[in-house]
Order: sequence, then structure tokens, then C-alpha cells
Amino acid sequence: MKAVVFHGPRDVRVERVPDPVVEAPTDVIIKITTTSICGSDLHMYEGRTGLEPGRVLGHENLGEIVEIGGAVQQLRVGDRVSVPFNISCGYCRNCERGRTAYCITTNPGGTGAAFGFDGLGSYNGGQAEFLRVPHGDFNCLELPRERALKELDYVMCADVFATGYHATELAGVRPGESVVVFGAGPVGLMATYAAIIKGADRVMTVDRHSDRLRLVEEMGAFPIDDRKAPPTEQVLDLTDGEGADRGCECVGYQAHDPDGIEHPNTTMNNLIGSVKPTGRFGVVGLFVPRDPGAIDEIAKRGEMLFDFGAFWWKGQSMGTGQCNVKAYNRYLRDLIASDRARPSFVVSHELPLDDAEEAYRNFDAREHGWTKVVMHP
Amino acid sequence: MKAVVFHGPRDVRVERVPDPVVEAPTDVIIKITTTSICGSDLHMYEGRTGLEPGRVLGHENLGEIVEIGGAVQQLRVGDRVSVPFNISCGYCRNCERGRTAYCITTNPGGTGAAFGFDGLGSYNGGQAEFLRVPHGDFNCLELPRERALKELDYVMCADVFATGYHATELAGVRPGESVVVFGAGPVGLMATYAAIIKGADRVMTVDRHSDRLRLVEEMGAFPIDDRKAPPTEQVLDLTDGEGADRGCECVGYQAHDPDGIEHPNTTMNNLIGSVKPTGRFGVVGLFVPRDPGAIDEIAKRGEMLFDFGAFWWKGQSMGTGQCNVKAYNRYLRDLIASDRARPSFVVSHELPLDDAEEAYRNFDAREHGWTKVVMHP
Amino acid sequence: MKAVVFHGPRDVRVERVPDPVVEAPTDVIIKITTTSICGSDLHMYEGRTGLEPGRVLGHENLGEIVEIGGAVQQLRVGDRVSVPFNISCGYCRNCERGRTAYCITTNPGGTGAAFGFDGLGSYNGGQAEFLRVPHGDFNCLELPRERALKELDYVMCADVFATGYHATELAGVRPGESVVVFGAGPVGLMATYAAIIKGADRVMTVDRHSDRLRLVEEMGAFPIDDRKAPPTEQVLDLTDGEGADRGCECVGYQAHDPDGIEHPNTTMNNLIGSVKPTGRFGVVGLFVPRDPGAIDEIAKRGEMLFDFGAFWWKGQSMGTGQCNVKAYNRYLRDLIASDRARPSFVVSHELPLDDAEEAYRNFDAREHGWTKVVMHP
Amino acid sequence: MKAVVFHGPRDVRVERVPDPVVEAPTDVIIKITTTSICGSDLHMYEGRTGLEPGRVLGHENLGEIVEIGGAVQQLRVGDRVSVPFNISCGYCRNCERGRTAYCITTNPGGTGAAFGFDGLGSYNGGQAEFLRVPHGDFNCLELPRERALKELDYVMCADVFATGYHATELAGVRPGESVVVFGAGPVGLMATYAAIIKGADRVMTVDRHSDRLRLVEEMGAFPIDDRKAPPTEQVLDLTDGEGADRGCECVGYQAHDPDGIEHPNTTMNNLIGSVKPTGRFGVVGLFVPRDPGAIDEIAKRGEMLFDFGAFWWKGQSMGTGQCNVKAYNRYLRDLIASDRARPSFVVSHELPLDDAEEAYRNFDAREHGWTKVVMHP
Repeated sequence: MKAVVFHGPRDVRVERVPDPVVEAPTDVIIKITTTSICGSDLHMYEGRTGLEPGRVLGHENLGEIVEIGGAVQQLRVGDRVSVPFNISCGYCRNCERGRTAYCITTNPGGTGAAFGFDGLGSYNGGQAEFLRVPHGDFNCLELPRERALKELDYVMCADVFATGYHATELAGVRPGESVVVFGAGPVGLMATYAAIIKGADRVMTVDRHSDRLRLVEEMGAFPIDDRKAPPTEQVLDLTDGEGADRGCECVGYQAHDPDGIEHPNTTMNNLIGSVKPTGRFGVVGLFVPRDPGAIDEIAKRGEMLFDFGAFWWKGQSMGTGQCNVKAYNRYLRDLIASDRARPSFVVSHELPLDDAEEAYRNFDAREHGWTKVVMHP
Repeated sequence: MKAVVFHGPRDVRVERVPDPVVEAPTDVIIKITTTSICGSDLHMYEGRTGLEPGRVLGHENLGEIVEIGGAVQQLRVGDRVSVPFNISCGYCRNCERGRTAYCITTNPGGTGAAFGFDGLGSYNGGQAEFLRVPHGDFNCLELPRERALKELDYVMCADVFATGYHATELAGVRPGESVVVFGAGPVGLMATYAAIIKGADRVMTVDRHSDRLRLVEEMGAFPIDDRKAPPTEQVLDLTDGEGADRGCECVGYQAHDPDGIEHPNTTMNNLIGSVKPTGRFGVVGLFVPRDPGAIDEIAKRGEMLFDFGAFWWKGQSMGTGQCNVKAYNRYLRDLIASDRARPSFVVSHELPLDDAEEAYRNFDAREHGWTKVVMHP
Repeated sequence: MKAVVFHGPRDVRVERVPDPVVEAPTDVIIKITTTSICGSDLHMYEGRTGLEPGRVLGHENLGEIVEIGGAVQQLRVGDRVSVPFNISCGYCRNCERGRTAYCITTNPGGTGAAFGFDGLGSYNGGQAEFLRVPHGDFNCLELPRERALKELDYVMCADVFATGYHATELAGVRPGESVVVFGAGPVGLMATYAAIIKGADRVMTVDRHSDRLRLVEEMGAFPIDDRKAPPTEQVLDLTDGEGADRGCECVGYQAHDPDGIEHPNTTMNNLIGSVKPTGRFGVVGLFVPRDPGAIDEIAKRGEMLFDFGAFWWKGQSMGTGQCNVKAYNRYLRDLIASDRARPSFVVSHELPLDDAEEAYRNFDAREHGWTKVVMHP
Repeated sequence: MKAVVFHGPRDVRVERVPDPVVEAPTDVIIKITTTSICGSDLHMYEGRTGLEPGRVLGHENLGEIVEIGGAVQQLRVGDRVSVPFNISCGYCRNCERGRTAYCITTNPGGTGAAFGFDGLGSYNGGQAEFLRVPHGDFNCLELPRERALKELDYVMCADVFATGYHATELAGVRPGESVVVFGAGPVGLMATYAAIIKGADRVMTVDRHSDRLRLVEEMGAFPIDDRKAPPTEQVLDLTDGEGADRGCECVGYQAHDPDGIEHPNTTMNNLIGSVKPTGRFGVVGLFVPRDPGAIDEIAKRGEMLFDFGAFWWKGQSMGTGQCNVKAYNRYLRDLIASDRARPSFVVSHELPLDDAEEAYRNFDAREHGWTKVVMHP
């Protein structure tokens, strides 16, 4: 089959690889109909992770079941499903508590597995014609029959819509509260959208790309351009000097200033300053324990100069980590089915899988208007 | 009246000061019968805060009401009460949500007030014969009639028992879970005790003072001596290599190694290593936004070299800050009244107020056996 | 001053009564600018409670502070405030936990107090020119300066908007879930509205008055007319036979069938049938421990023939009771201030206080189009 | 193999039946080493359910794995496991949220499945030499190697210890709170024990059997003998007239008075009276939608004369239903392993499986001292 294969920094190629097969009786094989490129793919694309060449990328996947293992009990060939980026067993200590991003059994020696992702097992991804999904009954979410017209929406349930929503859950956003979101990439836009869906009062989203800030404004949130003034100041101005009730980090370790210099602590320390005492953060931007390609020794060791004194004095709290997609995807699917949510507004490009190389190049360069790329094999 | 007055670094004096008076109609005046010295008093005693000379110290107070303002409605002269270290109004945005440590009205220009505490308003403390308590109806907790014999227990409800309990609440400790506590000072001992009361399975408490570690062991918890091996290793050994479910930080910014060199990030980074993926920390040790007396530039600015990459990769979370004493003190009082809790086991010295100078000196020096000092005026 | 005084069943009169005065130093007096009639006023109006003649009615109040007691610390004469229907002290065991509807001190011998309400203290209400508000600092919510044009919205924060919201909180409504609401009176409409604000997926609201069902539809919810088919059947039809995730009871003990015969158990038993296994109900319609005017002996004793076996077998749960208005009113106020919520859509009539007698008569008769009456003294 | 087979009211027989076999690749077969008789078995034994003759009883099971299906991934032959009474798939909407007692797939046409239980699928139970466990990876809990001496403790994790614990979770018991438990059968004793483990302050347990009340007292709880005075009165006396913070129902629909007359509403209405306003109940005693053998028409229809008016006026709430054993059994196992919990104190008789007929007879008759029977095949 055709697949997007990682060969090294800024080198992905659409090429032929063997078709996946059922390896365990609980596996299913799906024919991918829609798959997208995630911001976290770019960390791998840029060579800022340890991903080995040869792996198929792609963890935002939607498709049709074409084969099922002998122990699969609920799914049938022909079912159309959205597949969470996490690969989870469903029965370990973490899965049974809903922490499916931290499955203990699917990534031996680690915690948590994902499709096409460095450090989360050696599974191939779904930027390809077919995908093997372990523990099919647990990991596939059935889509309604009438979904045909909404495939771009449903594919967002595999990661970015769920991850943006997760940011607001970790932050504890409740109706009537104010929220600051750092980052208006796809995840930050989805966190903004999730906060609005939940009835947040004032959502303020920080970025510096005018195309993304425009999407923020169109949602009814407040775009904050950090090139114009420090974002903390702008948030304090919008909140009578008190700060936001909640904050979301949707940027991750490659945060950089307008000149492109990386400062991994920028967004976290800005959250401390722009959120109220007793406020809470949800941190879903990716941070890594070791970052050999980083700008200085501190960052190389995965450390951060964190304003811990101010954080503690304000009595703030935070939750972090990968999204447990299954905690949310049924509900997000239902909101899409009933037209209450249309997350596909974030999609800027819909391309054939064959254009993946160019898509990666443009998305990575943050070319104007390249907000989110969806591909069809 | 006689009171313990701060004059400068390592200089407190028992001297005469004017009696407090009712200033607002919601005030009450209590005659102090028991007051204790808290570990956080030592930060001020050592000159590691900006406390101005002349202030009366003491935020762990218990006594009898001798005068009430005209608007006090529930309390009567003669009632015996435990007084939380926080001074709170009861009606601001934070108080009405139970976040009484972050009261907006009692510390104009800041958030949160306390008796005899730098940075939390200019209120005098209760290491004295009398104490003015603002918002008496809200801030005083009535004690049962038979409390006479348990005054040493009830005074712990003013701070350390509540704060140790708060650590376990912030960490989300539940029955059957394992917990690691950093620090076996009074707060760490109380966090250990609270975890046991809550039905935690395995509680492991890290310190290096043999008198404190002995108290840990007597409670049925696991003492971990960090002079013998890295505490993270010891915790992993006790938990099949998995780490604890929850962690409590009860040391604060003056954490130091066995040679006395300060490393403010020691306990936090050890928590990351010794707690499981998806685990949660409660951080009640004091950290400050600026620390002019610190050992290096990073610490002077209140920053910390924090292993954020590992923290995020493990999907950990944390809550921090001062204890909202009123959230717990009724329940802790009731557990004492029914003999289910006896926190006074932590008290090593019961002295007259006149001995305060020596008590501060010995407690600050961590003289062997000086775990907790209680004084009677 | 002029006030709406209860004289007996279906007999309220606008007449002159003495002005309220500051009785305790924590009291404030407000000049009422907007007050409304609540569905629960009708229980009293109809003589279905033990309310004594002579009491001023009215617990949905908004106005301007004209006098403050000597111990009031935050409010100033001239402040405009929304006043929760509950009268609470702020410092008792229940108030400090946010359960302000169950204050222990303001209704001696009972639990919970309210303005102009039988069984909840002997306080006069605010369908009058002036109102005494005890514990002013705790019970008054300041309104933003620009509120002039939104007084009809803000007055809803005193009860019905908060109570409808409370129903969804008790029921645990979360984004993407389906909700059935019994009753489309003002509280049921507000519960419907609150569920939508919170991001519920499918909200189905049961009533039989076409004017109310039209408002349900205009919000984007599903109107269910219980004259056409059993509401349980209709809900199951709309939810693939599974039932709703959550349910809200917004009718109370005077529930009746289309022929006007009372069946106090109708809505509760319909909830059991129309909500999924493990689903949860929020019950905010008023039920009373004794109802001498009821149709049969069971109801007179405040009992109900409840399908407990089915409720248990489905593993359902429920929360009940009066709304703790202060738990929500800040947030609802902010949503109104930022135009994210406009609850005044429920108001059908805006009248001078002098028209109160006619307003009660028409509202009680459920005259077509009399959804909600707001009055200005 | 030998098994305890239901033949009709008060007629169970130990007889030979075919061995269970692996039917689905996710099945495991365990050799039962310990199994017990539960109070809910008695409803079936007495003929008060619709259980068809021929079914093997027994839902509290512990044993050793002797065969595994081809899709089982974590378990190995020889593992010793505790088996929850619920049979759950792990991947349906309810299982993935931890509501394993309400699995949607294992009981087609219903919700929730269990071993040897009427209305919860047609699965055989484990009062036998062997048991087939569907979805083995999900439903089996591994026991520590040293469990040999504690098999009587670990078997309690299959139902009664977990169910008693569930009662306290549904009721929301927190440290320092008071709790009233109705029923001191095995489940009520375990609810009492769970409340104590959680740090409850005062636990009061109502029964009338002196052997059971003695066990209550030995735990440090307050035994309440309902033959001496109305239990509500006794609870109010022990709580300064205020009532308990929380309540647990551990009796179920066959509640009866000291003369043996059934009143299914006794315990629920007593809870309303003996729990504080805003208090919460956990109801784990079994109630059924239809009870043809009941004493009157109301009970036959599964209805109850419930004091709903008082319940609502007090703002009480409740959770109900079967225990989701997997939510707790890991933690309870760990507490047993570390000797912090020894639930086997409830076991009065340890017998060979061959004595099952006599055991049922005596346990059903509530013969003095027959608190809990454990059997070994």
C-alpha cells in the first residue's frame, strides 16, 4: 500500500510499504478514508525526536473496517470508525480508570502507546491506505450512518478536537469562567472552541499568526497578538487586572519568540502571570524529558526555568499530558452528529495522500493559511 | 500584654505591647491559652522574608473569647475557639468558594491574609496573651466543652494538621493508594498522618532526622532516610518499580541537602521521579516569588529548574498553595473529639510563652527532639 | 411603602406597609427596581402552604442600596445589586460549604431561609418598594455599571436562572450529553437554557402549553408535548430507545395531568423511565413534607408512590432541593454582562407593581402567553 | 464437576453438571478454590426472583486459572485471581466510564451481567469446581503471591467488601463525617468497615441481631438495636439532634420489622429522618422493578411509599445500584495485602462445597452466628 514514511529530519516520502495484517485476534484492519497531519507530527518531521527512519506517520485516522480478528465482538466489516491516536488495552490499571493515554500493556517498557509516534511504541501510523488497530473493540468509535458529509469533522475526534477539549478539562473550565489559551494552532483553536462549547464567558487566545487569530475572532473569542504587547498584560487588561480563571497551554516545548528563538518556558510562565490566584492550567502542548536538539543545556535535559515561587504563592494548580481520547470522543462525535459542533472550520487544506510531502513542508513552515491539513488516500 | 515580637533575623523577644482592641464590629478578642511555633515562622525568624520589625508572630492559636464586637452574632464571651491561620472575610469571590487562604478583601493589594505573616497583611499574631480576630463569626471554630485535656490536639487544627491534610487533598489521596511525603517536619508528619487516616495503603515519608523518622515509623508509615540512598530509588523499591500513586511536598523553598546546601528544586524533582505516571502532587511547603537571601540568581528570582519534560511526559498534575483551614477544621476537630485523631503526638515541647526566645533558637537549629513547640501565655 | 401582601388563598393586595429598617449592623436596605413573580409564589398564592396572612411576597429582587448597617464592609449606598432568594449567614457549617440554601442560623428551628417564603423564616419579600437584606456583604451581588439595559436579565439571577442551572448541576449535565427536562415553566425553560449553555447535545423539554413549547423550540431544544403521547415514549424515540443521559424535574408537587388532576409522582416516575441506566436527576421543583390541600392521603403526608425498584435496578441517582444561588450567580451575571446569556427571553410581561393582583391572577391561571411576570415598583 | 444448582424456592442441591469450556477466545476457566454465599443469593433461594431452575449459583469467586482462550493477553495458567460478581466487556459506553455493573454488551436486552444471578444474563455461578469467566483480561484481578493465608479476605473483594465500600462511595463519605448504616449483614458490616477505613468520625449501624451488632461494636462503630427504640431517634441522640452526614442502605427490598412483616420502605424513610439536610445516601441493598411474592400491591409493582416531600425539603440526594467492583477491587486487594484491611472478620463459617445445602438453610434462617459462609470445592 502507499504510506507516508519518515526518513529523517524534514524528509518524509509517500512510498509503498507492506499492507498491515491481523496480528492478534483482537486486531482490526481499517481502510483509511481520512487522515490528517498533527502539529506533533512536526516535532518528528523536524528531527526533534528520536523517531527511527522507516516508520509510517499519522495518528489522526478515520476509515472503514475491512478485516477483523477472531476475538473481535462488536465491530463488523463495513463499520466506519474514528480511531483515537492512543493505542490502549482497556483492561490495565490505567485504562480501567479512563487514563487510556497511559496504558501499561501496549507499550512494554513505557506507558502509553500511539500510532506513528516516537516514544509511544513502535506502531505504524495511518497516513496510509490501511491501518492495523490493536484492541479493535476498545479503540474504535463507531460513526453514525449519515456521517458522509462530515468526515472532516469526525477525523478531528481522533486527536485535536479531543486534545483541545482535554486542555479545558485539565484546566477545569466551567460555564461563566474566563479562559486564556496559549497557542492558536489546531489544538489551541480546538481548546478555544471547547471552552466556548462549555459556556466559558471570556476566552482569550494568544498567537501571532493573523490567519489563526482571525479564526479565534470568528469563534467569538478574543484574539491576542503577542507581537503587539506582552500577552500577560493584554489578558490582565481584559479581566479588570485580575487574570483569567483558567489557562490552557497548547504550544509545547518548541515555543519561540517572534524572532524564532526558542524559549520553552514562555507559555508556562505567561500562564502564571495571566491566570488568577487559585486558577488552574491544562497543559497539552508536548514537552519531552530530553531534547538533544534544544537551544541550551537546560532545555536539552528537559528542564525548564519555571516561576515556581509565583505559581505557589498564587495557589495555582495544573494538569498535564497526553489526551485520553476515549474520555471524550463519544460526546464530541454526538455534538458533531447533531450539528452543535463543526470542528472542521480549522481545516485549511484537503489533499490527496500523494501530496503529503508538500503538505508537511508547508505546514511545518507555517505558511500563511496552512492551519490544518487533511488527506485522503 | 506580653508578646513575641520580631526584631530582625534570629532576633525575637518576649516583650510588652499594647493589648489588641475591637476595631471593627465583627471583631472578637481572644485570650490565648495555647499557641505554637510553626515551621513557616522560621522563614521569618531567619530573615528570609521581608517581615518588618515590630510584628507579633504566631498563627497557630487557640483561646477563649473575652470580648466581641457589636455585629458578632454567634459567638459569646467565654466560648473556646480554634483560630485558623488564615484571616478571611467569608463573602468575597474566593471565600464563598471555600478558598479562604486567598481572601480578596482582608489583604488589600494582595490575596490572602494571615496572623503574623509576611506578605499576608499587617496583622499581629497570637504568640501573645491576646489576639484580635477579624470576622469572628467566620474565623473562629468552637471547641467542645470537654476539650480541656486536648488543647494540644485542637491547636494543631489552626495550621499544621489542616495543612498536612490539605497536602493529601491537593494530591487527591484515596483509600488503598500509596503516597510519598517529602519532609517529616510537623507538616510532613501531619500529611503522613492524614494519609493514614484516609486509608492510604502505603505511606512513605522522606527525611533525615532520626527523631522525626521514628515518629513516621510509629504511625505505621515507611520512614525513608535520604542520607542512605536517593529517595526516588527507595520509593521505587517499595512500589515494585512503579512509584507512588500520590506525592506530598512538605518542605518548601529552603530544601537543602545533608550538607546544608540549599536546592529549592530537590523535593519537586524527586516527586516527579518517585510518583507514577498520571500521579498527582500536593505542594504545601512554602515557596516565594522572590527570595533575596537565596543561594543563586535563579532562586533569588523565585524560579526553579524544574524537570518539566518528565513531569509532562508522565502526565502528572499538582495543586499548590496555602491551606484553606476552614475547609477541614470542623472535621479534624470532630476526629479529635472522638479520639480518632490525636495529632499532638508531634508535640515535643510544651513551654511558657516566656521561653519563646529559646524555643525559636532550638527549633530553628533542628536540635534533636525539637519537633514541635507549643506555648502557653 | 407599597408592597404585595398575602391575605389568604388567591388574595394578594398591593397596600401600604411600614418601610423596612436596618435591624442588625450587617443589614442593608435596598430600593427595589425590579422584582418578579415566581412559580413557587403560586403555591403560596393558592393557599397550598401554611403562609400566614400579612407577609410581603417576592424573592426575585434587584435594586439599589439606599442604607447600610454599621458592620457592612464592602457595599456602598448607590451600589446596584441582585439579591439571591436565599437568606444566608455565610459562616455556618452549611454556608461555608456553599450550601447557602440550607443556612443553619438564619431560620432558627429550621434549615434555610428566604424572602417572603413559607417555612423559610418570617422574612418579608421584595415585591415592594424597599427590602431589608440581612448579611448584606454576603447576600448581595454587585452588578456591572452598564447593566441598565439588562435589568430583566439580571433579576433572573435571583432565582429562576440560578435554579434552572442548579437542576443541571444536580443532574451532572456535561457537554455532549442528552437531557430531558420536565416542565417548561420559567424554571424548566431556564434548565433547558442552562443545559444548552453547558454544551448539552440534545435537550428535550416536556410540557403541554404551546406558548412555552414554542420557547423551547426557539432555543434549539426539542419540545415534547405530553398531550400527544407519553413523554417517556417520546424521549426514548429521540434517543434510539436508550433514554437521556440526565434528567431535570422542574414541576414540583402540584404536577397534574392534562385534565388538571394532580399526580405528584408523575414527573419523578417519568424521569425513571426516560433516563438511561446510571443516569442522574436534578430535582428542583418544590416538594413539601406535608400538603394538607392535597388530593389524597398519601400526598397529604408528603409521601409519593415512587418506582423505587426500577430506579434502583437502573442504578440511577438524584440530587434535590432549593438552589444555592450564590454558587452560580456571579457566573450567570458575567454571562449576561458579556451577552453570552439573555435569560430575559422568558419574560412575557413587564408591569408596574400596582398591577400585581392581576398579574398573580393571570400567571396562576396559566393564561396563554403569561410565562413570566416582572414588576417595577 | 460438582456445583450448587438452584431447583426452586428453598431447594438448592449439590450435584454434577458439565464442566464449563472456553466459548469465546477472550474467556478463561478458573478452578474455584474459595466461593461464598451472598445475601443476594437468598432472594433467589427464597424464590423471590424469577431465576429459572438449573442455574448454578455463586457470584463471589476466587480461584486459579486453568485454561485461557486464544485472545487472552495478560493472564497465564496458574495465576490466582479474584473475580468480580459483574461480567463486563470493558469497551462499551458504560464500561469505559467505569460503570461495569451496567455493561451494555454482556447481557443482551438488559444492562449489566453477573454470575449466577436472576435478571443479569444467563451465566452460571461459581459455587462449583470450575467457572467460565468471559473477558478474562478485563474481569480477573491478579492476587499477590503470598495470598495463600488470606484467601478468605480476598474473596470478599468479589462482592461484599466492594459493595459495602460502594455504599460509602455513593454516599460520598469523607474523613471526619458521621455515617448511619442500615443493616449489619455482610454488606452492612463491610459498609461500616469501609467508612472506618476512610476515616469517618462516627459510624452508627442499625440491626437487631446481637451477633451482628457485636461485630459492629468490635470495629469501633456504634451498634443501634432497632428493637429498643426507633433507629432515627437513636441516631439523632448520637448526633446532637442533627442527624448523620451520610447514610447507607444495605438491606434491600425484603426489609422487615422485628415481627417479620416486610416493609420495603422502612430503611429508606429512616434514612431521610436520620440524615442531615443536604446529606447523601448510598443505596446498595437490592430493590427490584417487580416483586410478585411481595406482601401488597404496591410492593408487587416495585413501587414504594417514599417520604419524597421530606427528602426534597431537606435537600438530600442519593446514589443507587449494583457495585462496579472493578472500581475498587485493586485498592481493596492492596489494603488486604498490606494488612490494613482484614474483611474476613465477617466470616462465621468455612465449609466444604458439599455442605452448601445446609449452609443455605442456616444462612437464610439467620441462625444465630451465621454471618457469612465461605465454601471450598
